Amino acid sequence: MSETLTMPDHNGVPTDVPTYIPVRDEVDVFTAAWRSELPVLLKGPTGCGKTRLVEHVAARLGVPLYTVCCHEDMTASDLLGRFVLKDSTTEWVDGPLTRAVRDGGICYLDEVVEARQDAIVSVHSLADHRRELNIERLGGLTLKAAPGFQLVVSYNPGYQSVLKDLKMSTRQRMVGIDLDFPPAEVEMQVLAAETGVTGDLADDLIRLGQTIRRLDDAALTESASTRALVATARLIKAGLPPRAAAVSAIASPLSDDDETRGRLTVLIESYLT
Amino acid sequence: MSETLTMPDHNGVPTDVPTYIPVRDEVDVFTAAWRSELPVLLKGPTGCGKTRLVEHVAARLGVPLYTVCCHEDMTASDLLGRFVLKDSTTEWVDGPLTRAVRDGGICYLDEVVEARQDAIVSVHSLADHRRELNIERLGGLTLKAAPGFQLVVSYNPGYQSVLKDLKMSTRQRMVGIDLDFPPAEVEMQVLAAETGVTGDLADDLIRLGQTIRRLDDAALTESASTRALVATARLIKAGLPPRAAAVSAIASPLSDDDETRGRLTVLIESYLT
Amino acid sequence: MSETLTMPDHNGVPTDVPTYIPVRDEVDVFTAAWRSELPVLLKGPTGCGKTRLVEHVAARLGVPLYTVCCHEDMTASDLLGRFVLKDSTTEWVDGPLTRAVRDGGICYLDEVVEARQDAIVSVHSLADHRRELNIERLGGLTLKAAPGFQLVVSYNPGYQSVLKDLKMSTRQRMVGIDLDFPPAEVEMQVLAAETGVTGDLADDLIRLGQTIRRLDDAALTESASTRALVATARLIKAGLPPRAAAVSAIASPLSDDDETRGRLTVLIESYLT
Amino acid sequence: MSETLTMPDHNGVPTDVPTYIPVRDEVDVFTAAWRSELPVLLKGPTGCGKTRLVEHVAARLGVPLYTVCCHEDMTASDLLGRFVLKDSTTEWVDGPLTRAVRDGGICYLDEVVEARQDAIVSVHSLADHRRELNIERLGGLTLKAAPGFQLVVSYNPGYQSVLKDLKMSTRQRMVGIDLDFPPAEVEMQVLAAETGVTGDLADDLIRLGQTIRRLDDAALTESASTRALVATARLIKAGLPPRAAAVSAIASPLSDDDETRGRLTVLIESYLT
Amino acid sequence: MSETLTMPDHNGVPTDVPTYIPVRDEVDVFTAAWRSELPVLLKGPTGCGKTRLVEHVAARLGVPLYTVCCHEDMTASDLLGRFVLKDSTTEWVDGPLTRAVRDGGICYLDEVVEARQDAIVSVHSLADHRRELNIERLGGLTLKAAPGFQLVVSYNPGYQSVLKDLKMSTRQRMVGIDLDFPPAEVEMQVLAAETGVTGDLADDLIRLGQTIRRLDDAALTESASTRALVATARLIKAGLPPRAAAVSAIASPLSDDDETRGRLTVLIESYLT
Amino acid sequence: MSETLTMPDHNGVPTDVPTYIPVRDEVDVFTAAWRSELPVLLKGPTGCGKTRLVEHVAARLGVPLYTVCCHEDMTASDLLGRFVLKDSTTEWVDGPLTRAVRDGGICYLDEVVEARQDAIVSVHSLADHRRELNIERLGGLTLKAAPGFQLVVSYNPGYQSVLKDLKMSTRQRMVGIDLDFPPAEVEMQVLAAETGVTGDLADDLIRLGQTIRRLDDAALTESASTRALVATARLIKAGLPPRAAAVSAIASPLSDDDETRGRLTVLIESYLT
Repeated sequence: MSETLTMPDHNGVPTDVPTYIPVRDEVDVFTAAWRSELPVLLKGPTGCGKTRLVEHVAARLGVPLYTVCCHEDMTASDLLGRFVLKDSTTEWVDGPLTRAVRDGGICYLDEVVEARQDAIVSVHSLADHRRELNIERLGGLTLKAAPGFQLVVSYNPGYQSVLKDLKMSTRQRMVGIDLDFPPAEVEMQVLAAETGVTGDLADDLIRLGQTIRRLDDAALTESASTRALVATARLIKAGLPPRAAAVSAIASPLSDDDETRGRLTVLIESYLT
Repeated sequence: MSETLTMPDHNGVPTDVPTYIPVRDEVDVFTAAWRSELPVLLKGPTGCGKTRLVEHVAARLGVPLYTVCCHEDMTASDLLGRFVLKDSTTEWVDGPLTRAVRDGGICYLDEVVEARQDAIVSVHSLADHRRELNIERLGGLTLKAAPGFQLVVSYNPGYQSVLKDLKMSTRQRMVGIDLDFPPAEVEMQVLAAETGVTGDLADDLIRLGQTIRRLDDAALTESASTRALVATARLIKAGLPPRAAAVSAIASPLSDDDETRGRLTVLIESYLT
Repeated sequence: MSETLTMPDHNGVPTDVPTYIPVRDEVDVFTAAWRSELPVLLKGPTGCGKTRLVEHVAARLGVPLYTVCCHEDMTASDLLGRFVLKDSTTEWVDGPLTRAVRDGGICYLDEVVEARQDAIVSVHSLADHRRELNIERLGGLTLKAAPGFQLVVSYNPGYQSVLKDLKMSTRQRMVGIDLDFPPAEVEMQVLAAETGVTGDLADDLIRLGQTIRRLDDAALTESASTRALVATARLIKAGLPPRAAAVSAIASPLSDDDETRGRLTVLIESYLT
Repeated sequence: MSETLTMPDHNGVPTDVPTYIPVRDEVDVFTAAWRSELPVLLKGPTGCGKTRLVEHVAARLGVPLYTVCCHEDMTASDLLGRFVLKDSTTEWVDGPLTRAVRDGGICYLDEVVEARQDAIVSVHSLADHRRELNIERLGGLTLKAAPGFQLVVSYNPGYQSVLKDLKMSTRQRMVGIDLDFPPAEVEMQVLAAETGVTGDLADDLIRLGQTIRRLDDAALTESASTRALVATARLIKAGLPPRAAAVSAIASPLSDDDETRGRLTVLIESYLT
Repeated sequence: MSETLTMPDHNGVPTDVPTYIPVRDEVDVFTAAWRSELPVLLKGPTGCGKTRLVEHVAARLGVPLYTVCCHEDMTASDLLGRFVLKDSTTEWVDGPLTRAVRDGGICYLDEVVEARQDAIVSVHSLADHRRELNIERLGGLTLKAAPGFQLVVSYNPGYQSVLKDLKMSTRQRMVGIDLDFPPAEVEMQVLAAETGVTGDLADDLIRLGQTIRRLDDAALTESASTRALVATARLIKAGLPPRAAAVSAIASPLSDDDETRGRLTVLIESYLT
Repeated sequence: MSETLTMPDHNGVPTDVPTYIPVRDEVDVFTAAWRSELPVLLKGPTGCGKTRLVEHVAARLGVPLYTVCCHEDMTASDLLGRFVLKDSTTEWVDGPLTRAVRDGGICYLDEVVEARQDAIVSVHSLADHRRELNIERLGGLTLKAAPGFQLVVSYNPGYQSVLKDLKMSTRQRMVGIDLDFPPAEVEMQVLAAETGVTGDLADDLIRLGQTIRRLDDAALTESASTRALVATARLIKAGLPPRAAAVSAIASPLSDDDETRGRLTVLIESYLT
């Protein structure tokens, strides 16, 4: 490995690295996995900062990042590439995974369980000691991953069902990192960095978020995410009253049920003006 | 942002803006979300005015509007674009989402839950801080959304089932606006603006609509919409007797069951001549 | 609107208008909806005359008629049009809906609930105040419907299940017309017009049909339609004995069960020789 | 209609008409329906002679016959035709239904319930007073059926399930003919005509078949068809002992269950040597 | 029929005919069906010799053999043929069924129930008195089967479920042959012919196989086939100890359950050293 | 067979053969099957070394290895090959199975039950005495497998369900090899060879793995694999504390449940510092 792969110490983070305030050892585990050429499995709820963590680590390591939002109609071709017809000749266009393999970048498969099996299985040989990508459509071309390549997948354990789960043979190739919403002091820093909102308003928003997360409300399948708190702060800065902002950015996305949204609104009114 | 994006005050609405009479703060929340570069999730029953609200806001903001009726066979290509074979060469044709991203317009996905996952997921990176659209078919081209771009999706909470629901990871990227049928005084203004019907007949129609909406009839999955009242008024103006118009435009679409339609007809006859 | 769109009064029906004897106000409601630029939803059992009613109204109004039998494999392309490869160039061929939109004709979607959602949803923007058809495959071309255009859909409420039903957001855009089999005096006129059969034989056939319709037989999911009575009369005119004709044209299509068909045959023998 | 469509009387059947010995009035009903331009729905068990009846009538009427075995992957294109790529140009190839419509022949859809809805629905406009075939792929070309055209469909009521049944709107357009296995004297004639087997052996075979048909054996979903008796006679003529022939051509196809086949074998041994 | 189709008597079997030792009258029935131009339905468990029987009969009759392993994604095109694009022109390539029809060979559809309905139904007109193959893709070309053509299908009754079964209308066109594992003396001959193993070892293997077949073990869905005994003998000849060979070739393929495989291993150890 | 196919004795293993430490007779059975031209069915849990065993045997035998990760969207074309459009001509590209057949290599289908039936069935004629591959797309081309060709498939019995299982007709063509995690002394050797970790740390890791495997925890569908122990050792060498490494590489991939992961963490803390 070259020196560009050396992880800079925390004080020497380059200025264009997106802010990510670590909660536990997630940055260290991620980086050690990258050094060990092992893939990473990021777990955690919607809006807790998975995407930001990946952007942060990729920038610190100085490697390009290729992000793919997985979905149930995604096939191996969406990752590997395909022939495109162009003026009566055909031209191969690399997919994001192939680009990452060639460039030594991080390929981040967001919500990987949504993808079809052929897409997920196509990464198996990249995820074990072989670090190879086999592209059958190119006549069985086998690409050895460039140094720096890493596969990262994320998923939200709260969503999984029997029908849609990551196969054990895929999971066992990965180093797992379990994330959750950050504690109050970290979330305060995130709010300040993203929206410039600080002081009492920030304090009220954080406490509102934590109260909603502590709710044991069967009608809520998810809770107020860090992202929702950031959106609330931005609406307030755009001129909406704090309560209207929080109802729109927190309560309304969380539930379609009038009663549930009513209970959330009562909470909102007790924290915000 | 340029000055063309400045929201005019309420007294300065340009004359070609479609009429929309606000019920609560929906226009303000919508506009604040647009200023904050946050996507909007419109919720509400069929025919309550969601489409009209979007047309109104887009015209006030002076941005182009791209409307897409979602359905279960809609794919990402329907939104992003596709290669079309033309005289032995292929030509890329932008889809409505790509056009909105390039032009800084509003892309409105009507009844978004009907769309397939690949279509919905393709908007994720546009719906968070990245505001990027990645078009794999164009070799991984990444388009940064032009200023003014906003994603708006609508859906009808009454329809949702376990099988067809908006994923939380999609919802939590959005600012929610909960709509319902307008109160009598607002609906009266709508009727006058759309059909020219006023006075007693308008009064009778509005009271009929409100009575039907108050019905607690298990056989009705929906109620008399503002749109249905407008249709009734138009049939009357075309020469149909009021009762026949209301039976055809309100009762018949609401139910195929003879008894249910009979109960509605009795109501109609008590309000109209 | 031009004068060719003026509805002639009942005495001035042109001679090439297919015969349709109105039972209630269905022709008036249909015509008022056409004048009001509102789509029509025709409901009624198989063989009660829905197709004939549409042919009649279209001819009276002097507008072209485009009929589409919907089915579960029908897609938006079947309605809108598609590119056809022709001698190494591609050529766009309008579908029936697009032709009706351009020509200001009536587009009649027979048994609309059989169609796939993408086909049904593609008509939404034509069915409300916009009266626009958006053809994505032509680069987002938006066609404004020509004057005279009307969308008409039919379905048989007796068939609908939870899985196959017209969405409320579709129904609420329509003016509904509820049809049923005509009363004896009207059906007698139909029989005479279609087959020339009158007098006692016609009388016996009509009474037979009405008796079968009054049967409360759980084994029958449908009843003797006007179309089946017409077919019986035609077989008789082709030389079959009346009983054999009625068994073949009425009893056999209605049931595969020997006992049920036996009960119908007893009825037939009590009315016909 | 031309004189070639005149049905010859029974004594004047041309010599190349396939033998069919009528059981009841099925040939008369079929012919009257053809004269009346009404489609026919043939019902009856496997191997009772439905295909032979159609061949017989078509030959007697002197019209060409187009037979299509329907199956669950059959689409409208299989009936109507399709564009075939040929040396860089495309060429339209008529399907069997289109050929029958142009030539004034009989189009026979064998086991029609197996076909997909789009295939079945594509015949609706041919099956009512319109007698038109609309070919969207040819730009909405509408073919008027030539004189002599008739649609004939067959199905086996014993097979139908809730999932696979002929829609009432299809059935009610048809004249039904209910068939069953022929009585002994007719079946004897069939055996002689098809295989030359007569006398005691023919008698034994016929009685064996009738005994098996009378069995009330829950393990048998079908019974010994006329076709199976003919096959047995042919195997005997090819040198197999009668018992071995009947076990192979009757018992083995009817059941995979050793006990059921054993019971049938005992029966066979009591009738044949 | 030409003289090459004359069946040679048993003493005159040509030397390149694959060995098949008949158990009952299966070769005679098969040959009589071929002489009678009737298709054959071979039933029997995996590895009992169905494929070998077909190879044997085809070679004796001197006709070419076309074997197709059916599977659930097989379509009619896989049997009939397809157009293949080749250097900008298209070329029709006959499928195996079409080749057999043209050449007068045997077309053997192995495990026919696995095929999709369109593939199975496409053989119906070949399987009755018509002996015709209709190829719609070639413009409705109808091929008359050459003398010598025979359709042979096999399936394993033990596998069939409600969902996957041969339709009665297909079965009743066939002459059935029910096979099972051969008796000891025949299996001994097979073992000697295939592997050269004779004497005590052969004796032990045969007795082991028969003991396993007599087991009434609910955990076993199949039993030790003749093919598995042959494989065991070959592994022994390649140097493996007999017990290890039998565990690998018989017990391990039969079950994934440790206990079941343990019981089989105990049996193996009691017969082999 | 040529001399290059002679298996070298254990002392003469070429230096570039990947290390595999045999647990029982798996290498001998595998090699005997290869000599006997019989296919192999490898069974065992995720991460127990199936892929490594195949790599080892292929290298020892000096034959090329073609590995295919099977998945539910894999078709026969993915194995056999396909026509690829290239500059207006089409070119056939062999799939990995076809390459192995031509080159006399081992074709290894990893997790074969994931593949679609058409892919699995396409190997049947290669897996019995015929050793032939039939490529219909090449006009029925039949390839005789070159000497040295062997088919190897793997699957994990713990995963199988009723819906996804290897058909008996496929299994019975194979020689089965049942694998499990290696005993402690073998696993110690693997750890040393793969990561250089020996001594107390290796000892602790191995004992931790064995303790987890002995757990009778209903919440665990799989256990700590050899691969997971290797990953833990690599993370430790990359600088992570042993406990953090084991939590990330063992506990987190095994479960998304906080309690289960907590129990595993307690175990980890009792073995590692």
